[in-house]
Amino acid sequence: MGDKRLTLQSEDFNAWYNELVYRADLADLSPVRGSMVIRPYGYALWENIQAALDGMFKASGHENLYFPMLIPVSYFEREKEHVEGFSPELAVVTHAGGKELEEPLAIRPTSETIVGEMYSKWIQSYRDLPLLYNQWCNVMRWELRTRPFLRTTEFLWQEGHTAHAGAEEALEESLRMVNIYADFAREHAAMPVVVGEKTEGERFAGALRTFTIEAMMRDTKALQSGTSHYMGENFARAFDITFSDEENELRYVHTTSWGVSTRMIGAVIMAHGDDQGLILPPRLAPVQVVVVPIYRGDQPQLARHVLSEAEELAGELAAAGVRVRVDRREGPSPGWKFNDWEQKGVPLRIELGPRDLEAGQVVVAKRLSAEKESLDRRAAAASIPARLEGFQKELYARAESFRDEHTFLADDYESFRCHVGQGWAYVVHCGKPQCEQAIQQDTKATPRCIPFDGPPAEGTCVRCGEPSAYPRRVVFARAY
Amino acid sequence: MGDKRLTLQSEDFNAWYNELVYRADLADLSPVRGSMVIRPYGYALWENIQAALDGMFKASGHENLYFPMLIPVSYFEREKEHVEGFSPELAVVTHAGGKELEEPLAIRPTSETIVGEMYSKWIQSYRDLPLLYNQWCNVMRWELRTRPFLRTTEFLWQEGHTAHAGAEEALEESLRMVNIYADFAREHAAMPVVVGEKTEGERFAGALRTFTIEAMMRDTKALQSGTSHYMGENFARAFDITFSDEENELRYVHTTSWGVSTRMIGAVIMAHGDDQGLILPPRLAPVQVVVVPIYRGDQPQLARHVLSEAEELAGELAAAGVRVRVDRREGPSPGWKFNDWEQKGVPLRIELGPRDLEAGQVVVAKRLSAEKESLDRRAAAASIPARLEGFQKELYARAESFRDEHTFLADDYESFRCHVGQGWAYVVHCGKPQCEQAIQQDTKATPRCIPFDGPPAEGTCVRCGEPSAYPRRVVFARAY
Repeated sequence: MGDKRLTLQSEDFNAWYNELVYRADLADLSPVRGSMVIRPYGYALWENIQAALDGMFKASGHENLYFPMLIPVSYFEREKEHVEGFSPELAVVTHAGGKELEEPLAIRPTSETIVGEMYSKWIQSYRDLPLLYNQWCNVMRWELRTRPFLRTTEFLWQEGHTAHAGAEEALEESLRMVNIYADFAREHAAMPVVVGEKTEGERFAGALRTFTIEAMMRDTKALQSGTSHYMGENFARAFDITFSDEENELRYVHTTSWGVSTRMIGAVIMAHGDDQGLILPPRLAPVQVVVVPIYRGDQPQLARHVLSEAEELAGELAAAGVRVRVDRREGPSPGWKFNDWEQKGVPLRIELGPRDLEAGQVVVAKRLSAEKESLDRRAAAASIPARLEGFQKELYARAESFRDEHTFLADDYESFRCHVGQGWAYVVHCGKPQCEQAIQQDTKATPRCIPFDGPPAEGTCVRCGEPSAYPRRVVFARAY
Repeated sequence: MGDKRLTLQSEDFNAWYNELVYRADLADLSPVRGSMVIRPYGYALWENIQAALDGMFKASGHENLYFPMLIPVSYFEREKEHVEGFSPELAVVTHAGGKELEEPLAIRPTSETIVGEMYSKWIQSYRDLPLLYNQWCNVMRWELRTRPFLRTTEFLWQEGHTAHAGAEEALEESLRMVNIYADFAREHAAMPVVVGEKTEGERFAGALRTFTIEAMMRDTKALQSGTSHYMGENFARAFDITFSDEENELRYVHTTSWGVSTRMIGAVIMAHGDDQGLILPPRLAPVQVVVVPIYRGDQPQLARHVLSEAEELAGELAAAGVRVRVDRREGPSPGWKFNDWEQKGVPLRIELGPRDLEAGQVVVAKRLSAEKESLDRRAAAASIPARLEGFQKELYARAESFRDEHTFLADDYESFRCHVGQGWAYVVHCGKPQCEQAIQQDTKATPRCIPFDGPPAEGTCVRCGEPSAYPRRVVFARAY
């Protein structure tokens, strides 16, 4: 944990984030520029994210598979916008097995191209459709400025790739998936995300429409936490993915893709953390409850008794389906352990000392408040699952209040400038790229999305006074 | 499935394997030389392998984490044997982000080097030990001759990496892990593997001792299906991984590594498959039971009734924890579907037609025999889990009989030559690399391992008459 205190969020939010990632044992720098090691505590968080999302994908009819990581560089050139978007970030293998390769191979930055190549082989008839596939894998984008979880050259993610007989069905799929992401974010990550469509300038390279979930961080910036794209026939034409329809006519399929990455871990850190460290939503927390036995080193018999009671309680909790750990470390004091687990964001801490045992009780401390509560020892384990659910809801409500307090409707440019310095602003916008750019240069804010359930766009563009390009207001915010 | 029949095992075992991988929808060729696409049916098999192994790793105290995929080429040069073993197979990134890199980066062929670099940072004191970590990831070895699942340039695997305070403890760990692999192979993959130690010539590059599980394929060849290595201080010295012991002396840690890959899928295919196709062990099978509704296309009302009964039965099976699928495809005949699911190795098939429904029964066909059995419709679902367990045991027994029928003790070179043409031979061996090579050139057989529970080595080397190098006989076999 280190002796120096964690930088306060109010002092320097970026420093707070960078320090916390290392101090909470989530990740470590690696010797390769821009890449990181995800340590067990961070990886366990990712495993819980994966398990929840994977269950949702399978329940909605998707199957997992695995595509090769190396993609011929020439594939990227087949889709014009795609190559412009991704070429500058490719990492390229030129030598292998001691020889120079005839054609250089890129490490996938995303897999639409190799997927397209295979789908053109697998799809012949309308009977082969839809293809609803997903893969969990690593990808690589050679970014100049990197930050752990938020932007690293290599990252882990899932990428769904589906092919459909028609536009309507494919569009439905891409909407279904962004809504699954929103459900995941709200129910598992306790993040009250705003769901909507990206403006043209923020679309995925090669997509006709891009949908997104946007989460507010504790510094009021936005973090794009998952995206879903409707590609139309773009990749089908580039990779010749055709099928015979029921009238035996040859047609192009319509494709979608959608992804969530280890960036979600960054979102969870910044959406909930405070000056003491992480606050993890119970459904994703690697450790939901830590049991800290309290005893003095000079009373070995009492210490053994306290430890054995702590293990017994942990056994009861595990049997109740709770992810629990007993902190048996011998060096550190109870107070140091409290701080350490607070920094690691464990939702509930149970303290267990000789006096508690005598009184037949345990003390429960909640990461969200300073109060402690005494519980009857015998009834403690049974009450914990409901307390964790309560914590999950409370964390969501806290994030929602924070978001609502920092969300504004702005109808003139001066108040807009002020609001995007303190939060998110819903405005009427003309949709013109030059106007978006002018706003960004002036305020650092970008259009995050046109929210599905946002207020209607009445009036004219907040900056230039031109008519609205969209039926609803656009959310602008500074973003990661 | 295609119209041409599958090549028989007796005609050409390799052709049988290659055809089956594609026909059973396990994998497909990819446009990048030597790599493959793992299709959903093959990937689901891998997910079941992962789930079983991952549970065993966690139950034995290991945690997952993730290391970067790109490793500076210079790292490989720090361990002499390691660089000799892996340099020829490296795929190297020389350009990224549009520029030439200052130092080329290799795609990991295995991660001991980057792990060593991080462990030297994470380990300071005996209190930090042991480190018991594992990662699930892709790796790349630029092989010249590739075959799906058995040897591909890119493959998926898990690699465990542990660090310990002493030799004894580290050796225990590497033995624990090879035994976990053996338990997995026997209990989940129904493969009666032989567990033992590799001879010097077959050791992992950089290891002091390598342990292995070896499985017999239906052509009597051996397939190395998982290995565990004790590294001694080799990597600790190369990467300066030291710790202060309880007396405050600085010492090198002892490390281990152990891995199982998608090669295990190849093992399952060839250990159990027959001329009709795959035979999958129920515990790993993506589909344990397929329900095939039988009706004629000209009786739509009856068809709907049969289909709805099939779905009801499948619902009961799913509720009993069975992985079940209803084959609702409209084009193919029931007979074609039977063949298709037999080829895909589904353990149990339930047939359901109008006459069965009238008689209140269903018909169960077992992939391991030609007989069919009628079951009472109401009692059917409840009986299936026990039938699947029975199938699992039967498949193991079948593989064990096959292995035992093709395993020989050989005490003279002529009978040895004959036996390794038909199976595995347990022999006394001198342990000399030249003698191993002479045997390989003459018979294509290599020493698979010195089995832990094999017969003692009495007498002299089967080929050269020198004294035995080992207390027990060595298993020689032709191998993949």
